[in-house]
Amino acid sequence: KVSEASLSSVAPVFVVMRFEKNGNVTSSEKKKTELYQELGLQARDLRFQHQTSITTRNNIIILQMESLKAIVTPECLLVLDFRGFGLDKWLVLELGPQLAGEGTLVTYSLPFEFRALEALLQHRVNTLQARLNEMHPQIMDSLESLVDPKILSADRSKLHMLLLNSKGLSELETDVKVFKESLLKILDEDELIEEMCLTKWTDPRVFEESSLGIDHAEEMELLLENYLLQAEELGNNTRELKGLIDDSESVIFINLDSHRNVMMRLNLQLTMGTFSLSLFGLIGVAFGMNLESNLEEDPRVFWLVTGIMFLGSGLIWRRLLSFLGRHLEPSSPPPIPPVWKKGHIASARGTDIKGGVR
Amino acid sequence: KVSEASLSSVAPVFVVMRFEKNGNVTSSEKKKTELYQELGLQARDLRFQHQTSITTRNNIIILQMESLKAIVTPECLLVLDFRGFGLDKWLVLELGPQLAGEGTLVTYSLPFEFRALEALLQHRVNTLQARLNEMHPQIMDSLESLVDPKILSADRSKLHMLLLNSKGLSELETDVKVFKESLLKILDEDELIEEMCLTKWTDPRVFEESSLGIDHAEEMELLLENYLLQAEELGNNTRELKGLIDDSESVIFINLDSHRNVMMRLNLQLTMGTFSLSLFGLIGVAFGMNLESNLEEDPRVFWLVTGIMFLGSGLIWRRLLSFLGRHLEPSSPPPIPPVWKKGHIASARGTDIKGGVR
Amino acid sequence: KVSEASLSSVAPVFVVMRFEKNGNVTSSEKKKTELYQELGLQARDLRFQHQTSITTRNNIIILQMESLKAIVTPECLLVLDFRGFGLDKWLVLELGPQLAGEGTLVTYSLPFEFRALEALLQHRVNTLQARLNEMHPQIMDSLESLVDPKILSADRSKLHMLLLNSKGLSELETDVKVFKESLLKILDEDELIEEMCLTKWTDPRVFEESSLGIDHAEEMELLLENYLLQAEELGNNTRELKGLIDDSESVIFINLDSHRNVMMRLNLQLTMGTFSLSLFGLIGVAFGMNLESNLEEDPRVFWLVTGIMFLGSGLIWRRLLSFLGRHLEPSSPPPIPPVWKKGHIASARGTDIKGGVR
Amino acid sequence: KVSEASLSSVAPVFVVMRFEKNGNVTSSEKKKTELYQELGLQARDLRFQHQTSITTRNNIIILQMESLKAIVTPECLLVLDFRGFGLDKWLVLELGPQLAGEGTLVTYSLPFEFRALEALLQHRVNTLQARLNEMHPQIMDSLESLVDPKILSADRSKLHMLLLNSKGLSELETDVKVFKESLLKILDEDELIEEMCLTKWTDPRVFEESSLGIDHAEEMELLLENYLLQAEELGNNTRELKGLIDDSESVIFINLDSHRNVMMRLNLQLTMGTFSLSLFGLIGVAFGMNLESNLEEDPRVFWLVTGIMFLGSGLIWRRLLSFLGRHLEPSSPPPIPPVWKKGHIASARGTDIKGGVR
Amino acid sequence: KVSEASLSSVAPVFVVMRFEKNGNVTSSEKKKTELYQELGLQARDLRFQHQTSITTRNNIIILQMESLKAIVTPECLLVLDFRGFGLDKWLVLELGPQLAGEGTLVTYSLPFEFRALEALLQHRVNTLQARLNEMHPQIMDSLESLVDPKILSADRSKLHMLLLNSKGLSELETDVKVFKESLLKILDEDELIEEMCLTKWTDPRVFEESSLGIDHAEEMELLLENYLLQAEELGNNTRELKGLIDDSESVIFINLDSHRNVMMRLNLQLTMGTFSLSLFGLIGVAFGMNLESNLEEDPRVFWLVTGIMFLGSGLIWRRLLSFLGRHLEPSSPPPIPPVWKKGHIASARGTDIKGGVR
Repeated sequence: KVSEASLSSVAPVFVVMRFEKNGNVTSSEKKKTELYQELGLQARDLRFQHQTSITTRNNIIILQMESLKAIVTPECLLVLDFRGFGLDKWLVLELGPQLAGEGTLVTYSLPFEFRALEALLQHRVNTLQARLNEMHPQIMDSLESLVDPKILSADRSKLHMLLLNSKGLSELETDVKVFKESLLKILDEDELIEEMCLTKWTDPRVFEESSLGIDHAEEMELLLENYLLQAEELGNNTRELKGLIDDSESVIFINLDSHRNVMMRLNLQLTMGTFSLSLFGLIGVAFGMNLESNLEEDPRVFWLVTGIMFLGSGLIWRRLLSFLGRHLEPSSPPPIPPVWKKGHIASARGTDIKGGVR
Repeated sequence: KVSEASLSSVAPVFVVMRFEKNGNVTSSEKKKTELYQELGLQARDLRFQHQTSITTRNNIIILQMESLKAIVTPECLLVLDFRGFGLDKWLVLELGPQLAGEGTLVTYSLPFEFRALEALLQHRVNTLQARLNEMHPQIMDSLESLVDPKILSADRSKLHMLLLNSKGLSELETDVKVFKESLLKILDEDELIEEMCLTKWTDPRVFEESSLGIDHAEEMELLLENYLLQAEELGNNTRELKGLIDDSESVIFINLDSHRNVMMRLNLQLTMGTFSLSLFGLIGVAFGMNLESNLEEDPRVFWLVTGIMFLGSGLIWRRLLSFLGRHLEPSSPPPIPPVWKKGHIASARGTDIKGGVR
Repeated sequence: KVSEASLSSVAPVFVVMRFEKNGNVTSSEKKKTELYQELGLQARDLRFQHQTSITTRNNIIILQMESLKAIVTPECLLVLDFRGFGLDKWLVLELGPQLAGEGTLVTYSLPFEFRALEALLQHRVNTLQARLNEMHPQIMDSLESLVDPKILSADRSKLHMLLLNSKGLSELETDVKVFKESLLKILDEDELIEEMCLTKWTDPRVFEESSLGIDHAEEMELLLENYLLQAEELGNNTRELKGLIDDSESVIFINLDSHRNVMMRLNLQLTMGTFSLSLFGLIGVAFGMNLESNLEEDPRVFWLVTGIMFLGSGLIWRRLLSFLGRHLEPSSPPPIPPVWKKGHIASARGTDIKGGVR
Repeated sequence: KVSEASLSSVAPVFVVMRFEKNGNVTSSEKKKTELYQELGLQARDLRFQHQTSITTRNNIIILQMESLKAIVTPECLLVLDFRGFGLDKWLVLELGPQLAGEGTLVTYSLPFEFRALEALLQHRVNTLQARLNEMHPQIMDSLESLVDPKILSADRSKLHMLLLNSKGLSELETDVKVFKESLLKILDEDELIEEMCLTKWTDPRVFEESSLGIDHAEEMELLLENYLLQAEELGNNTRELKGLIDDSESVIFINLDSHRNVMMRLNLQLTMGTFSLSLFGLIGVAFGMNLESNLEEDPRVFWLVTGIMFLGSGLIWRRLLSFLGRHLEPSSPPPIPPVWKKGHIASARGTDIKGGVR
Repeated sequence: KVSEASLSSVAPVFVVMRFEKNGNVTSSEKKKTELYQELGLQARDLRFQHQTSITTRNNIIILQMESLKAIVTPECLLVLDFRGFGLDKWLVLELGPQLAGEGTLVTYSLPFEFRALEALLQHRVNTLQARLNEMHPQIMDSLESLVDPKILSADRSKLHMLLLNSKGLSELETDVKVFKESLLKILDEDELIEEMCLTKWTDPRVFEESSLGIDHAEEMELLLENYLLQAEELGNNTRELKGLIDDSESVIFINLDSHRNVMMRLNLQLTMGTFSLSLFGLIGVAFGMNLESNLEEDPRVFWLVTGIMFLGSGLIWRRLLSFLGRHLEPSSPPPIPPVWKKGHIASARGTDIKGGVR
């Protein structure tokens, strides 16, 4: 609240990097009020409130893509407040040359605003793609080790990594969606596409030319559609990756459950053994009592009883084990309907589909 | 039912706070019948049945946002029934100054209805945002402690907190959706946007001016679109948070399952030990019987049998443990297809995407 | 099939309750053929095949809402086949007075068909709302007791109740959806809205008036939109309640799993104790054998061995317990990335959002 | 591949059943080439590649509904390749009479193509409904026995039945969706509806009549809309049934988990007992050793030690059980916020909704 | 980066296979610059950045379907960069003959671009269908063995196979979606459909003919719609298969849980037995102590105590087992509401639906 008060008393200052049409790049500081008077805009046009937006106002394109705030005029591209977001390197090493025609822009034969817009949109798509590219191997690595059927319990650090990346994917999905919507908002209205073609309205010479040969609006539509498609492919990849995580989670659960069942059966088998030993051990305990059984003197009885104890335990255990075996698998398997075995979908309907247009 | 009867006999009374264009703020009580005759409305126009609605009627904007009921005319803003909802402070300390031009409204250069609408919409968005801001740290805190891989069982109070916040998120999601829909309903019809510009129709002077310079309808569209975008960002954040809860729940389950498997293996290993001891203990029990084995006199036999008991138990246990180890991990791991290892998505398709518009 | 045959030979009979414009209510039986000739309709117009539909035909509104079948003409409202569905009370006690202007209809100043339609739509919404109101406390009650972290196993009757209510919610959701769609079908076509205003076409006097002052079609649109909004709020509440059930199920599972883990740990700790006792008990068993150990005579040996047995068991158990403690919590907790702790969403993006339109 | 080759050399033959306008039914074989020349169609119009499609071509309606392939002209209805799909009975016993006006078609006063279309669409809806009707009791039966809280483990045959029916529901859902889409494709374009009214274009007399009284296109729209609504109701029922299966699965899991927890507690209680017995049994084992304790001669010691063993076991067990009881239920239940208890949705928001349009 | 640099210095070269209208097939290498000058295109038109796209530019159709890049002119079809993707066989053995009229194309009577387009679209649909056909049996096989109720733990290799195929299905779903969208983009705009009919604009003779008889645009729409429908059927099948996997996973979990519950009950029963034996074994241990009980001399006592031990164990065990039985099934089953038993959906609502249009 304090900072707001001071901000309203002192006019805010933008750090501006200016890319001229002819390749000149200058960097300066400008008061906000100066800037918007210079550009013929209103104060509210330069508020940059939203994460992603592309608007035109008074024959100027105002564009925000997360930390990148840019203003495109027919003559130059201004990038505002670029410091501290790691944009500097890209601005100097890539954007400058691209706008000067040295890069590999598709639109280098078109007016300046096309080149600027393409460079900015491509930067945005590349940033989003880079986020996916960074998460992709981590996710695959986490999943690969978690899905591994040999493991008895999930690796906690991998799990944590997966959760973080899962969160990252959701955020990426939202950002791609917002980017797509901001492009769609323009593509849905022909009027807005027209407004994006700045040179068409300022430079009569170009306008005439365009009324003959290339249609600027059509080129703009193709340019935006191109990035819409790229964003959609990015969105599809993100969605597939999320789906893969979901599927893998089911597999992880089945794995853990399977392990548990296997261990439980082993445990049960041993419990059966212990029970058998306890049961027949009771005979031994009985004969160990300081009570007279009148059998004490007969030397064969020792071996007889010992034999009964061991053999009896063994026999009972075997019976219990075979009982367990019978108990776990149903005596008569339920008759599996033939429809399932024969691959119903493929046979009953696939044939129609395979046919195609013959 | 009783109150309804009495309400129909006695004309209902509104407590009204009136914000004049010139900054005057007055508060009074008015009979409902008086109020709507004064405004040229019909009784049914002031029923405020829905949670969220923005309508125009007879050049007056009637707006309801949950407990906030407001009427905007070109001259003044009336807030109805504001008591008991905690609105008083905001009305006096924020809304008054904002309308008087002291605040930081974008539209302070535009007619009164723009300022009033902006202040009300901003209040609504801030209220919704505040609900998210309140829940966000609680949810993150609950999740953080629940996801913690060290915990063996979920903390019940955290779980309860999470459920409550989950419910709160669903409600917030609905409210944001309803708010967005009420804005979209207006934005979808140009006619409705025109009707929102009250001054345009009442003040010919302004209307002329607007037909020259600034288009009121366009400004209104920008204003509403702005809040639509903010509501969408809010909705996106809510959705992401819900997604995070879902993802975390999977992780919680995997954690709990992992713990269980680890404990089950330990339990199984000990059961194996106990079984081994029982088995060889049976020898001891046998020799403890009061029966003659003819070995009683030989002093070496004691040590022999005792040794057999302990060593035998140990050996059998070791065999069982190594059997368990072999049993749990498959002897030959299933050959993992290379397609998975190599990161199919990235290699086979990512390259096309990375390229961008070159 | 038999009844169909007899139905086609004998003309079917409708029990009709007739609400005249002037408040008269009469009830009679009418042959279907008579009825549709009287109204100028065709046989197929009175089939009432669908659960919910609102159609106009020959300046008559035909409306079906589940068991309520009604025909609205500019002069009267006919309710057909009302017996046996519990509608009688509503028809006599509420609908009659409402149409006679005694109730609290919004549209009592508008032509008869508006009042009839409002009364019918309000009845429908109230019926749907009543179903939700009935299920809501039952669901909350079931969930409250199921979510209770103290319970070890889910209460079966509550669970059954929840399943039944869950089914009821799905059906309510469908009915609300169908109701909304039948309203939307009319609202989407201006022509259909016009057709709903019966009086406009039959009474030239009213038509002229309407061409001056109030626009009937606009009032009809507002009326239908009003009920669409109410249905949407109902749908939102239903959806939220279903979401709450889903969220609660996760919590129930986590609770049950947590209980299980806690019990399993206790079990494991006791198994450790039993193992320790078995291990050192073996010493006792060894000395209990009727074999000569040459230690029999020394009285200190008894206390020594007994001490070893008890102390040894205790020590081993303690080691095992501390091993379990170490085993369950990882020695070095995975370094939790700071991004999670600091509440990434709030800090990195929330600030942009909070700002609003400044 | 071989059959394709032979099919192209030899002209394919259709088995055709012909229903004339006047009620005549004839059945014959026709070469495909003959057929389409006779009807003025092209070869590709009679390929019937898709599962469900309704198209018009050269004033002829070509319709395919899974195995039912039909051609409707203003004069007759041709059903092609009807053998081997169980259609014969329906064709002879139902379709014939219906077209001859004996059935209960809504459209029997309208031109022939209406009757034919209605009969075919009704057959399709009935077929789809029959599939649902067949699966519905099986699913309810399976669910009822699986949801039964008494069962400890799921009945495998019921489970298998449920899976098969679940698959069947998915297929039914797809078929209903495809059917709806094929109707919607026509309903979305007025031109296509017009084309469906064959008689309007061929019989000038009827056309004039229609331009006066009944509008054929409107009747066609009502007919198709009617079946669209029926398909939607069918789709809603299918969706609800799938939802019920999902909800039931949660209940099954909660049931199985509850059983497990109950058994685990019993197991734990017994393990506690066994542990207590082992612990105090060790005393007995100690005194059973052939070592001198100098207590051998005192007859009271026997009863003392025996008493300690039994009472001690009992006491320790009791302590452990009460410890378990305390451990499983938290000493201080988490304070449940009042918002949940009071039924927040109903109280805070329901009141607004209940009000309706008063 | 290095390869990019070299690519920009050296003009890229396309390997081109050319299918002339008259059946000639030639294969050559062409510089990219030559190619686009020859075709009157711009450099950026031949970038093939997206996975799937169909565009027209300067009366030429440019089409990309994953690895297949094709250019259709009214005179010939060029396939670019076809090597290394396994397309060679299809190009030579199928595409050539099809375009020459030997195949079974629907459009062989229409201009060349129709035939080329049909052949390419059919290839695409066949490729997608082949992917589904390949995965379908594998998935059914995996599911069949995993769903098998006899198995105690999931087969890991089957599970891994399922996960891989699940991933494959997601990718197929995306590809089908993208294919559908690229067709829909054209079908949604009449202008684009017109542009696809190349011959119409180049060959006046054909154009006149078309203005009389067959409408090219309509044929093009039918052709594209046909493949849209096929893609939709493919998408439906993919979706059903994913649904089947989901349903099966639930069944797998229920199976594993059921097995676990059965084993746990057996385990519990044996633990009960062991407990009983321990309890009564304690008597034996007591009498085994070297302490005087004064019962040593009575020979009947031995048999009495032994009998008590065995019978007592047995009796206690039986009591515990019956307690378990009572504990697991509730004494009074919850009264199942009749609504569920009677099949509510079918009876209360199904009757309305079954009726149909009577």
